[in-house]
Amino acid sequence: MDKRLAQQLSFILEIDKEKNILRQTHLSGGGRRENDAEHAWHMAVMAYLLKEYANEPVDVAHVMMMCLIHDIVEIDAGDTYAYDVEGLATQKAREYAAKERIYSLLPEDQARELTALFDEFEANETAEARFAHAMDNLQPLLLNDSNDGGDWREHTVTASQVLGRQRKTRQGSETLYDVTIDVIRKHIENGNIKGSIDDIGDVQPDQAEKC
Amino acid sequence: MDKRLAQQLSFILEIDKEKNILRQTHLSGGGRRENDAEHAWHMAVMAYLLKEYANEPVDVAHVMMMCLIHDIVEIDAGDTYAYDVEGLATQKAREYAAKERIYSLLPEDQARELTALFDEFEANETAEARFAHAMDNLQPLLLNDSNDGGDWREHTVTASQVLGRQRKTRQGSETLYDVTIDVIRKHIENGNIKGSIDDIGDVQPDQAEKC
Repeated sequence: MDKRLAQQLSFILEIDKEKNILRQTHLSGGGRRENDAEHAWHMAVMAYLLKEYANEPVDVAHVMMMCLIHDIVEIDAGDTYAYDVEGLATQKAREYAAKERIYSLLPEDQARELTALFDEFEANETAEARFAHAMDNLQPLLLNDSNDGGDWREHTVTASQVLGRQRKTRQGSETLYDVTIDVIRKHIENGNIKGSIDDIGDVQPDQAEKC
Repeated sequence: MDKRLAQQLSFILEIDKEKNILRQTHLSGGGRRENDAEHAWHMAVMAYLLKEYANEPVDVAHVMMMCLIHDIVEIDAGDTYAYDVEGLATQKAREYAAKERIYSLLPEDQARELTALFDEFEANETAEARFAHAMDNLQPLLLNDSNDGGDWREHTVTASQVLGRQRKTRQGSETLYDVTIDVIRKHIENGNIKGSIDDIGDVQPDQAEKC
């Protein structure tokens, strides 16, 4: 087998480990915790089906690939819960090291290509990255909503935290942000999320960026 | 929320159940059994990375979407192991009923679009479908190879069965079929697959189609 194909197959086997990285979100029906590979699969299908709601026209294949690979770094860096302040402080450094190791298993051109795709997602400056972020937020929100907000209750999450994080959804899709706000409002009213819908006024841009 | 978006979100929540459909394949490192969503995620990333080995030029976004949705019918129909003769006899009818129910949750245009994509995969007549089938075969083969052929040993699978199934890989990619044959040969020599590499001559096209 030539070196290029061997490198590709080595990367393909390595990323199998993403199936063991557990997130805080539980599957619908009050199921077990979801893993990163399942989350990425779900996001990519969602991107395809919901692309008509992107604020700007998007290259959906580019969004899908971004969704599929955005969590590969967590094989080394682990999943950082959206509301874990200590974990968030070291997340970037851990993910940078992981990116260097894992993508370098690929042939150089593909390592560059996938690294660029991951960096584009992280920078969140293109229409595609913004829509991929909307999927990254909406997907666990839908599962958590279907489970009566269990994940928010378990972590005593506040309205400010949820709203801060979900601001990124608005950058990708105003329509899907409206859905998000409706879901959050319902769970604040039900007591599953602590605080008030008016707390959105308290969220500072810096905070929003972090969560 | 308008009806169209509600239908899309209903489908998106429904397919979460694919994460509970277990396959016979085990994750690398001798892990637990893989589920359909993880398998689909892995296939889509593989399609993107290995597209240069397709026998004919392929629209890789089309292949990826086919990979992502090809097992959704198993939410109702269950996974049919490639070498389960009884299950294979009823597989098509079960999957047809599942397709009708699950895709009809979507707005009509998207139901038609995804049904057509699934039918294209099943018919295996386009370059994209043939390459998607190559991914569908190669992905579990790589995992099983990494686990010293444990899944083949567990099910006492024969060389004729494996080679019959893997003929579809050849239709999508001669290069990846060569890799496949090397892996199979190694596991026949190690006794993990019963029979002889010469058994390929015994495989009839009908048999190949079924397994």
